[in-house]
Amino acid sequence: MPTYRLVLEYDGAPFAGWQIQPGQLTVQGELTRALAVAMRHEVKVHGAGRTDAGVHALGQCASFDSQVEMAPYRLRAAVSGLCRPFITAVEAAIAPSGFHARFDALGKHYRYQLLCRAAPSPLLCATTCHVTASLDRQAMLEAAALLVGTHDFGAFRAADCERGTTTRTLSRVELVERDPVLSIEVEGDGFLKNMVRIIAGTLVDVGRGRRTVDDVRGALDTGDRDLAGITAPAHGLALVSVRYGAGWICESRASSSRGNRKL
Amino acid sequence: MPTYRLVLEYDGAPFAGWQIQPGQLTVQGELTRALAVAMRHEVKVHGAGRTDAGVHALGQCASFDSQVEMAPYRLRAAVSGLCRPFITAVEAAIAPSGFHARFDALGKHYRYQLLCRAAPSPLLCATTCHVTASLDRQAMLEAAALLVGTHDFGAFRAADCERGTTTRTLSRVELVERDPVLSIEVEGDGFLKNMVRIIAGTLVDVGRGRRTVDDVRGALDTGDRDLAGITAPAHGLALVSVRYGAGWICESRASSSRGNRKL
Repeated sequence: MPTYRLVLEYDGAPFAGWQIQPGQLTVQGELTRALAVAMRHEVKVHGAGRTDAGVHALGQCASFDSQVEMAPYRLRAAVSGLCRPFITAVEAAIAPSGFHARFDALGKHYRYQLLCRAAPSPLLCATTCHVTASLDRQAMLEAAALLVGTHDFGAFRAADCERGTTTRTLSRVELVERDPVLSIEVEGDGFLKNMVRIIAGTLVDVGRGRRTVDDVRGALDTGDRDLAGITAPAHGLALVSVRYGAGWICESRASSSRGNRKL
Repeated sequence: MPTYRLVLEYDGAPFAGWQIQPGQLTVQGELTRALAVAMRHEVKVHGAGRTDAGVHALGQCASFDSQVEMAPYRLRAAVSGLCRPFITAVEAAIAPSGFHARFDALGKHYRYQLLCRAAPSPLLCATTCHVTASLDRQAMLEAAALLVGTHDFGAFRAADCERGTTTRTLSRVELVERDPVLSIEVEGDGFLKNMVRIIAGTLVDVGRGRRTVDDVRGALDTGDRDLAGITAPAHGLALVSVRYGAGWICESRASSSRGNRKL
């Protein structure tokens, strides 16, 4: 019975998040519906990260088992066709037996995009959070550097987050400027509920001078949610990619850019 | 009587193009409506380029005269507020007397974006043209290089183009790859109707092997429209910026990113 792996891009705007919920439009729900048609039986699909309502994905990973053998390029096209226009399968592959998109994920890369100028942007409004205030990049860089490493991120999670432990390791919290967008790139081994959005909200507060680098240090030391910033809006966030170990290399990968690089 | 200059970003999707037309939603029409409210009298607004229906702009330039004195930052905010959500004024400025956005433009920069992969993109579908075929970058580069310089672009214009002369000078036709998007960057002193879209369609044809570099040479030599490619869809195109001479430097510029660069 083959295990399949999908790499998914989606526009988070219409969805009540990844996780299937009765009566709501969700990414997992749409995929479940589409895969039942494509594979001709019900499948249980697992996502690497349960993105919140409104959060986008460029490279969400999902896995499922099926008794049906299907060529990856057909699966890729079927999912894209059945889930359009808000979800597309960028890649499909047959994964090594036992692969699970969530349990086997070693890390994830999220990107939070800030539109940094006075004017709103008709072309970027769906994927960036508009910040009109001046942002002190140097202070933001200092605060970002504090977050890298293994810390108790108890101050950086939603009130209803149910995870037992709050210690996580971030390998990267970087600012990437590409005028007029300032991106906060966050990579880590695991994330608490709303963690990246609270990190983004905190860094913006530091940039505007509403919070200090010492407040961020205090939030990490004490776990006090009040020392961290607000939860930044969902539409600025995207799950960029999910990292797996070398043991989970997929065969017969139907990549989306197959054959496109001739130079 | 001050002359004002605006730098505009817009989403071309809802508009029947730049030029005002009775009973149609147009960029010039919306601006005219907004400026009548902001300036409290009718104004005639001139755009540097008359973008086609569906074509976007990141930096269209417009000018108008008004007897009303208004601080540029107020004008910028008023236009953005009155034209939302599809048009925004990224900058506003008082221009030297006599400035005309169209007649004084020395050159324009257009960008045509191709999404180069098998899967469609929910997040990029509004601003990229999806090409699933493999593209031979080397052949495209050779064809692009032929177009640079002063040529008769008679083969690269719409059938209903009314310009008298068809000789134009392109200073740049470049391919910029930023996976999964391949951008065709075109800069020149002037453009015929649909010229950039026909250049994009021609380069894609060359990339797919449907046309040769010699066909492009032939199109330039003979002016034969049949040797050039199709007119690529409007939604992949954006007017990036307009270039003016040093004599038209604006005072009291209310830039959109004012004060945002602290590093």
